[in-house]
Amino acid sequence: MLKGKSLVNIDDVASEDFFRIFDLASEYKKRLSVGEYVKELEGKIMSTLFFEPSTRTRLSFESAMHRLGGNVISVSEAKSSSASKGETIADTIRMASSYSDIVVMRHPMEGAARLASEFSSVPVINGGDGSGQHPTQTLLDLFTIWEKFGRIDNLDVSLVGDLKYGRTVHSLVRALSRFDNTVNLISPEILQMPDHVISGMKQARRIKRIENLDDVLTKSDVFYVTRIQKERFVDLNDYAKVIGSYSFDMETVSKMKKNSIIMHPLPRVDEINPEVDMDPRAYYFREASNGVFVRMAIISMILGVR
Amino acid sequence: MLKGKSLVNIDDVASEDFFRIFDLASEYKKRLSVGEYVKELEGKIMSTLFFEPSTRTRLSFESAMHRLGGNVISVSEAKSSSASKGETIADTIRMASSYSDIVVMRHPMEGAARLASEFSSVPVINGGDGSGQHPTQTLLDLFTIWEKFGRIDNLDVSLVGDLKYGRTVHSLVRALSRFDNTVNLISPEILQMPDHVISGMKQARRIKRIENLDDVLTKSDVFYVTRIQKERFVDLNDYAKVIGSYSFDMETVSKMKKNSIIMHPLPRVDEINPEVDMDPRAYYFREASNGVFVRMAIISMILGVR
Amino acid sequence: MLKGKSLVNIDDVASEDFFRIFDLASEYKKRLSVGEYVKELEGKIMSTLFFEPSTRTRLSFESAMHRLGGNVISVSEAKSSSASKGETIADTIRMASSYSDIVVMRHPMEGAARLASEFSSVPVINGGDGSGQHPTQTLLDLFTIWEKFGRIDNLDVSLVGDLKYGRTVHSLVRALSRFDNTVNLISPEILQMPDHVISGMKQARRIKRIENLDDVLTKSDVFYVTRIQKERFVDLNDYAKVIGSYSFDMETVSKMKKNSIIMHPLPRVDEINPEVDMDPRAYYFREASNGVFVRMAIISMILGVR
Repeated sequence: MLKGKSLVNIDDVASEDFFRIFDLASEYKKRLSVGEYVKELEGKIMSTLFFEPSTRTRLSFESAMHRLGGNVISVSEAKSSSASKGETIADTIRMASSYSDIVVMRHPMEGAARLASEFSSVPVINGGDGSGQHPTQTLLDLFTIWEKFGRIDNLDVSLVGDLKYGRTVHSLVRALSRFDNTVNLISPEILQMPDHVISGMKQARRIKRIENLDDVLTKSDVFYVTRIQKERFVDLNDYAKVIGSYSFDMETVSKMKKNSIIMHPLPRVDEINPEVDMDPRAYYFREASNGVFVRMAIISMILGVR
Repeated sequence: MLKGKSLVNIDDVASEDFFRIFDLASEYKKRLSVGEYVKELEGKIMSTLFFEPSTRTRLSFESAMHRLGGNVISVSEAKSSSASKGETIADTIRMASSYSDIVVMRHPMEGAARLASEFSSVPVINGGDGSGQHPTQTLLDLFTIWEKFGRIDNLDVSLVGDLKYGRTVHSLVRALSRFDNTVNLISPEILQMPDHVISGMKQARRIKRIENLDDVLTKSDVFYVTRIQKERFVDLNDYAKVIGSYSFDMETVSKMKKNSIIMHPLPRVDEINPEVDMDPRAYYFREASNGVFVRMAIISMILGVR
Repeated sequence: MLKGKSLVNIDDVASEDFFRIFDLASEYKKRLSVGEYVKELEGKIMSTLFFEPSTRTRLSFESAMHRLGGNVISVSEAKSSSASKGETIADTIRMASSYSDIVVMRHPMEGAARLASEFSSVPVINGGDGSGQHPTQTLLDLFTIWEKFGRIDNLDVSLVGDLKYGRTVHSLVRALSRFDNTVNLISPEILQMPDHVISGMKQARRIKRIENLDDVLTKSDVFYVTRIQKERFVDLNDYAKVIGSYSFDMETVSKMKKNSIIMHPLPRVDEINPEVDMDPRAYYFREASNGVFVRMAIISMILGVR
């Protein structure tokens, strides 16, 4: 049960709660699609406390809160906050939590959300903490897979691109490994998934490093592509080479199964060619818009109206 | 009909829609003036996506949305947006549109709003795109004239100041020229209205460049004054001279007709002396506040509740 | 009566209004604590116009407005406002006031709020103007004392720390001195309360400069501690010494009366050791959260629904 609890780490969410969230997100999606106004959180206030900018995540949460009839107070930039006067995270979160019923926090430092949850008088949702966790992203990713395939087990999932710094794939691989899934890791040498992320997992034997994208192209159900940041490369020629072998265009996509999908946490830069957008296997925009329904579900479950 | 459509360019708005907008704006203005709460867009969300700051325009739209009972999610500064991670306008607008029912976008680049409207899943209102269009400003200008004179034809209108870079006057002159109006262009040599703006207009013969403000002061019905930006001048002495001959003080105003009005898109700097503010012909603050009612009308017509 | 009036200076608020505000804040606090949604300002809009950042004050006001069912439009940073185009405060406030029913303004310049109130078409609440006034802070401070002791007279109050630049203590000492209170001023030499603040007060004889904190520690009812800013000191050794003698830790607190309280306008830095937070005399977080209820009361009284 999520009621009254903070959501800091996807590992803390019980698997049965995954499906409760999916069901509720699905219900909200249907009701919104017919123009219904889901007014379950009237009078409630969410604080969005962003110590680093993330427009996509912030707007998605704020949209979710408004769709539920609630209101939002927002700090979109750390520098305009009391933090710049030397205030600790503990004191800042005490402030935000005394002004609202739920807090969404994003912070550049790993562990910041856990710390915040300990000092907050209301539940805290981790909206991303450094290279740490971003649990609602993982839940919307899983929901998108569940919506497409009707399940989140017995799937072949390929994670492609930056598996070292890409926070979302770390959480995703852990969540997928709770169930019977095959996970392929496809990345350039210098952007491989760190061992500590996968070691000790129940299903670790079904997680494999794969050399070439071509080796899985015809068999995976899900391709989860991540942004490869130019800044990671000292030599821009290396970047160009990597982008060349790990990006998706229509030639790549044409080899994929008819019933497979491409996902991406967005923003994308060169990893997916815009020509792919019109293909029915392009699922990244749907994935992004699912964020609102999944967050609606999480918020209303935490606030105990569901 | 505006229903379900984007509003990018004033030239795309049919003249009969001008009057539908005026009537509805007028109705809203009356209802708000007696303290009524017009709750026609409850549960709806507007995204305001501002890639360059414009507090006045953003607040006016947000006020309009709230007055209609709707909610707002807002990005007031480009730099805190995904754009800084290399995301295209197409992808950014896809995001914003999947979180809301209508998007207001302002962008420094001409044509950005048109591009956005092609990728958005919901209607886009152009809140100003570079030196391009700012159609809701034109509509609120026209509404203010209509409210005063009961018509937007058979008027003598003088546009004064920066007619070269002043985006609002380009749209205004095109809109006024759909009807039987006389338009006088009064500006310093270096800030003249470009030929391409007026060439090919139906009523072009009634648009005249006038040397001196004095030549029209006693006969115009409307003086539309624009801000002359210091930055346009290499030599600040030139700026001082220009401001001297194109600005309005009580001496200027005293020569105007009793029934004439002064408008200005604001912010003003030195073009209109604050001593003029109390004169009944000073219409620029009323013009600004009309922005809320006109935008309410536009939003509710686009969202199809009117 | 506050109805329809601006709130610029605490000195303009009648003492009987203090108690009206306390009673209403108290009522709102009770109703919110049982989960009631106080929907008294539906359809109303507040503008928050912050020319300098103050997350705490802004969020507290915005939370208060939302708790009352109203909406908010917000400018959190001056630089993104028309002010940067050379617009005067008079014109900016005319804009904001034409978009909303009440304006909260914060400005780095003393007197800015008074000026704004003269040009605004709706009531203005001063959210802090430079080294001038911050009346809602004073009211929430007084409310916190009233809530604890049931009165705001016949108390022994010690103001500790930066009494020179600390705006909140200037207003507080003036307000406390309307009633029979003893006020002790305890600060380093260079941060003493300026004479002009206390001269001419009715109860000036009961305001005393005290050398050592120890002299009042066992007798005061209220310790109001303020942040000492490093930037005030040329020599950082001086700062270290000062912080040493004016800060509160458990050793200090253990000498205080059982029924006394410590307040602080927050953010705190080194003035109060976090170990004090758990002591029942630590009242600064309660003080901060009281800000919402007191501001709710002020807003609804000004807007005339109470």
